[in-house]
Amino acid sequence: MSDFLNARLPDGRRVTIQIENGQFSGFSEALPGSVTAPDARDLGDLLVLPALVDSHVHLDKTFLGLPWRPHRSGPSVKERITAERDGRADLDLSVEARARVMLDQALSHGTTALRCHVDIDPDSKLDHLSQVMDARDAFSGRIDVQLVAFPQSGLCSAPGVHDLMDAALSDGAEIVGGIDPIGIDGDLDGHLDAIFGLAEKHGAGIDIHLHDPGHRGALELRDIAARTLASGLGGRVMVSHAFALSTVDDQTLDLTLTDLAEAGVAIMTAVPGAVPMLPVARIREAGVVVCAGSDNVRDAWSPFGNADMLERAMLVAYRCGFRTDEGLAIALDLATEAAAQAIGLGMWGLEIGAPADFIAVDAETVAEAVVNRPPRGYVVKGGLVVAGTLA
Amino acid sequence: MSDFLNARLPDGRRVTIQIENGQFSGFSEALPGSVTAPDARDLGDLLVLPALVDSHVHLDKTFLGLPWRPHRSGPSVKERITAERDGRADLDLSVEARARVMLDQALSHGTTALRCHVDIDPDSKLDHLSQVMDARDAFSGRIDVQLVAFPQSGLCSAPGVHDLMDAALSDGAEIVGGIDPIGIDGDLDGHLDAIFGLAEKHGAGIDIHLHDPGHRGALELRDIAARTLASGLGGRVMVSHAFALSTVDDQTLDLTLTDLAEAGVAIMTAVPGAVPMLPVARIREAGVVVCAGSDNVRDAWSPFGNADMLERAMLVAYRCGFRTDEGLAIALDLATEAAAQAIGLGMWGLEIGAPADFIAVDAETVAEAVVNRPPRGYVVKGGLVVAGTLA
Repeated sequence: MSDFLNARLPDGRRVTIQIENGQFSGFSEALPGSVTAPDARDLGDLLVLPALVDSHVHLDKTFLGLPWRPHRSGPSVKERITAERDGRADLDLSVEARARVMLDQALSHGTTALRCHVDIDPDSKLDHLSQVMDARDAFSGRIDVQLVAFPQSGLCSAPGVHDLMDAALSDGAEIVGGIDPIGIDGDLDGHLDAIFGLAEKHGAGIDIHLHDPGHRGALELRDIAARTLASGLGGRVMVSHAFALSTVDDQTLDLTLTDLAEAGVAIMTAVPGAVPMLPVARIREAGVVVCAGSDNVRDAWSPFGNADMLERAMLVAYRCGFRTDEGLAIALDLATEAAAQAIGLGMWGLEIGAPADFIAVDAETVAEAVVNRPPRGYVVKGGLVVAGTLA
Repeated sequence: MSDFLNARLPDGRRVTIQIENGQFSGFSEALPGSVTAPDARDLGDLLVLPALVDSHVHLDKTFLGLPWRPHRSGPSVKERITAERDGRADLDLSVEARARVMLDQALSHGTTALRCHVDIDPDSKLDHLSQVMDARDAFSGRIDVQLVAFPQSGLCSAPGVHDLMDAALSDGAEIVGGIDPIGIDGDLDGHLDAIFGLAEKHGAGIDIHLHDPGHRGALELRDIAARTLASGLGGRVMVSHAFALSTVDDQTLDLTLTDLAEAGVAIMTAVPGAVPMLPVARIREAGVVVCAGSDNVRDAWSPFGNADMLERAMLVAYRCGFRTDEGLAIALDLATEAAAQAIGLGMWGLEIGAPADFIAVDAETVAEAVVNRPPRGYVVKGGLVVAGTLA
């Protein structure tokens, strides 16, 4: 049992946070002179928020830890895949070392759980996976890391990748990744047969990078929804990016969202800046779980990114035009509870029985925390302080 | 004379910055044992960048200094004008006090010059102006503040505002403001006659808020360009927002940009998140000066904003898809040299003869400074350290 005194909850209550076995066991309104645990920590009236969840990162891609590298790739997905693979040999720091720098940065910003896609391709084979697993183990108890075996260079179209994915899922990857069945692999049925087959074989969930826009992307989304429904994988399938949802007509959007909601397929947005933003409010209204992720953090794909999910929540609100307190709270939800739900973490947030993962920040309200993104005073995982500027 | 030792310039040179009479007088490659001024300050190899210029703020609108206020207005310009005026009576802190908090925040982020629009309307008359002038005077020598007499509630359509504007320009406002001649004032010729007339009378420049989109806005832009050319005011007229430039067809865009370039009319963008971003690269290629501004900083118009122009530069790059080092440098230019040019500051930047206004930050390169937005270690104005986390 451990207590945190003088916590301010999003609803304004001043409470003592009680924790047992790493879970919240109570939020009691502070009583002067009441008995608290001897090791109780005083949060000094800071605002407490659920710990942040990053639903989409690439720990093996980041340049963090290296000197600044100017961006060199052209803008298309294929150009970036090629530029990234061509540039790997120049990186003077191991995948594991760079992944550790990024995990440390994510933790300092209050992220205590994340989903990481790891490249599985004919060059790197299972090497990135084993290095990211070592980095993950080094952060055990501080950040929970889910690993996706991700066929960045294609699955059907890249020799040997199917077998490598199979091996990755035996070796410790927990989720089957996919990428543009039509746009990259050029084989809608072949790609989806492969990843749903691997998911069934390994009892794994699925997370598909879908950049394909417009009606091609919508067709893929509806096919993914149908296969999810047929395979009973509802609640365990996510589509990342899903740019199609911001580039189709209204009627197609409605039909697609209806299918995704019925099937239990979640959507992840990395909150792009220079292409249309997903219609987040409408996706939520349709009953589809939508969450945010960092995606690229200073890598061959983008020089931007800092693994700060509170900043990502700000960008959600900025891009969606959310200005009210309710809208700003929705933006934060995409980086906390909705993200936890989308990646299957179970209970998350400031509730009795949920993991005692939270952050404490100097902000008056949730809305102010989202617009201001104050330093994380305390980052707490399972009831233990694991980071923070005041820790 | 004062020196700053161990400065790293954007081109990578390590230099001693020499300053005389508040201006840069030399950037000499450091020689061990060379003689420096006795009060020389060591910048410790920090990266030096031009001080930031905020080309568009509303010091009289901000809620900074007050408890958090949830956003209440509807989304249209007219709804926000009304909501703001209705809510003024609830603000428990004077215009001057709030303006001071914002100036302090802007300075801490490295802004040493800004242009501020001050509401001139039938309710507030010249009260905001006199209070903002008092705040400006309190920051004399730290931030240069240009004042625009801004008819937020309309000019021709709001009783008495023309005379109030005239008085404001006699009392100390330096620039004639305007707002949507068609969309708000409902009288294109009347509005432009009035503001160009006031500009001529007072020898003042012009800065027009133009939210009107599409062809209506493009028509207004071309009319403003024609009047600028006819009145010889080229280089002293700016149009703020100019949403029309992101909402017209290519041919109209080209014609409009050609007119603006020929007339010497500059464009300001506040880098909106939820509407189309201005085509910054294309505007620059057409020879039109384009700069960025904070606009609303936590006020009745928007809960966002923090008066950090380095963050605004990041948002320019994010919204425009600028990823290369060259692109990220352009984004910074919109918040430094281009902004200085647009608001008529004369020389600006790291050049001999320019005002010795600069910031020093912990970043490897200009590009990294834009994506990371590190704390401003030193903020220097006219050769004097006026703010900074290391000051």
